[in-house]
Amino acid sequence: MKIGVFDSGVGGLTVLRALLPRIPDAEYFYLGDTARLPYGSKSQATIARYAVSSSQFLIDQGCEFLVIACNTASALALDEIGLTAAPYAVPVVGVITPGAAAAAAISQTRDTLVIATSATVESHAYSAACESHGLRSIEKACPLLVPLVEEGWIDHPVTAEVTRIYLSELHRQASNASLVPDTLVLGCTHYPLLREVFEAGVRELWPGHPAAVIDSAEATAREVERQLNASFSNRPAAGIRSPATRFYATDSVVKFRQLGTRFLNQPISDVELVDLGG
Amino acid sequence: MKIGVFDSGVGGLTVLRALLPRIPDAEYFYLGDTARLPYGSKSQATIARYAVSSSQFLIDQGCEFLVIACNTASALALDEIGLTAAPYAVPVVGVITPGAAAAAAISQTRDTLVIATSATVESHAYSAACESHGLRSIEKACPLLVPLVEEGWIDHPVTAEVTRIYLSELHRQASNASLVPDTLVLGCTHYPLLREVFEAGVRELWPGHPAAVIDSAEATAREVERQLNASFSNRPAAGIRSPATRFYATDSVVKFRQLGTRFLNQPISDVELVDLGG
Repeated sequence: MKIGVFDSGVGGLTVLRALLPRIPDAEYFYLGDTARLPYGSKSQATIARYAVSSSQFLIDQGCEFLVIACNTASALALDEIGLTAAPYAVPVVGVITPGAAAAAAISQTRDTLVIATSATVESHAYSAACESHGLRSIEKACPLLVPLVEEGWIDHPVTAEVTRIYLSELHRQASNASLVPDTLVLGCTHYPLLREVFEAGVRELWPGHPAAVIDSAEATAREVERQLNASFSNRPAAGIRSPATRFYATDSVVKFRQLGTRFLNQPISDVELVDLGG
Repeated sequence: MKIGVFDSGVGGLTVLRALLPRIPDAEYFYLGDTARLPYGSKSQATIARYAVSSSQFLIDQGCEFLVIACNTASALALDEIGLTAAPYAVPVVGVITPGAAAAAAISQTRDTLVIATSATVESHAYSAACESHGLRSIEKACPLLVPLVEEGWIDHPVTAEVTRIYLSELHRQASNASLVPDTLVLGCTHYPLLREVFEAGVRELWPGHPAAVIDSAEATAREVERQLNASFSNRPAAGIRSPATRFYATDSVVKFRQLGTRFLNQPISDVELVDLGG
């Protein structure tokens, strides 16, 4: 089984990291479209064009299943990616629906907060997915968090302060709308690296009943496993061999290796440079 | 006279703003390669590829002179752009040499500080340009400043704090190298919007002898004027008619108009969407 995992950069490696132990009997092809990142500040037309060419590349490598680990591409281009994959009968799973489902599975109040890139928030893909799971939601774009993570300021007072400002705004919006959120969905693959900062922030702003912080990577990996088991019933049992991984990037492979290791939480050896045009 | 002005985004509009009153008898073609920005975090090969296709577009519009308003493209791709423009006999002016010359023109101590994107700093184009003007320099990448400007956090305590952190690091490096800097070159077109923040920062860190803050936009416009007067001796005298401007962007024209107005300091009416591939 060849599984393609696609992100605009290295953030989607947190999804690959969740997939590896869960579906070890697979060959993984990870593509980071680093020459054209970030997607989160760009228009739907541009994001769709980039996501389609990236997905086509993974299909051309023989991938039989596509995981769109990029929240922005999942929010704005899942239909276009689906149309690209359909002629090859390649299923496509994004991160938005699993993330909303994970919040729905544990929310008692049925109110949730979502933080994401500007493009993801403007698409309202998360609020639609939450609504279909019976959740009310408030979304907030947090454009500074990706640059802060990429600068390596993970455990840094400036990052704590920026997070506090964004969460305060969410708190104000939730109060105005009379929502009692008990879940906070991390709607961008960079954000899990700031999990402790978010957990401190929600404890400070909602003392007594802090929202649970939800990372869609684990939920997405579970959904991929479920679909694989349902569609490919003759799959060998998990755990019989270790997964193989191949990495592709559209810009500097050195930078991908360095930054990616932090997201995958294990060394990345070979990365192949690919040209998707542009 | 058709003058092409190129940047990865809207930042280069600060250079266009300096050109308009100085060379009003021209028709300006401004291209922001917004679908592929930022350049400052990418590799030389990718930056050169993007800069060459952008420059070719402006030449195809009939531009007779190219101004590379993007510091990163000037630092890493000026040779490649020159090779692209040479067959058309189109002169090319970047922002690095004029910026270094402006520092050299006023520095008494012959020591200068340069802040820029990661790619610009890693290229050491500024230190080479400074050295050729008899200046010693210390360079520092400031990757968070562009996102802070784009978030609109111009007059914001977080931006002041981030600037203080970057300038403190420069101060430490300058002290270690026994430099006495009296000039600070803003080596990215986004930074002039933070001029007051930098001026406050250098007053705090170097009390008594704060460095003068240098914006290369004005220096670049002067260099373009000098070259035009030298090469096109039959130019009509300046001021006889108002300049015409055309704007092109590779991503959302709405966003370009909104954000660009702040950089150009005047309303931008029509922006045309262009596809450079990718």
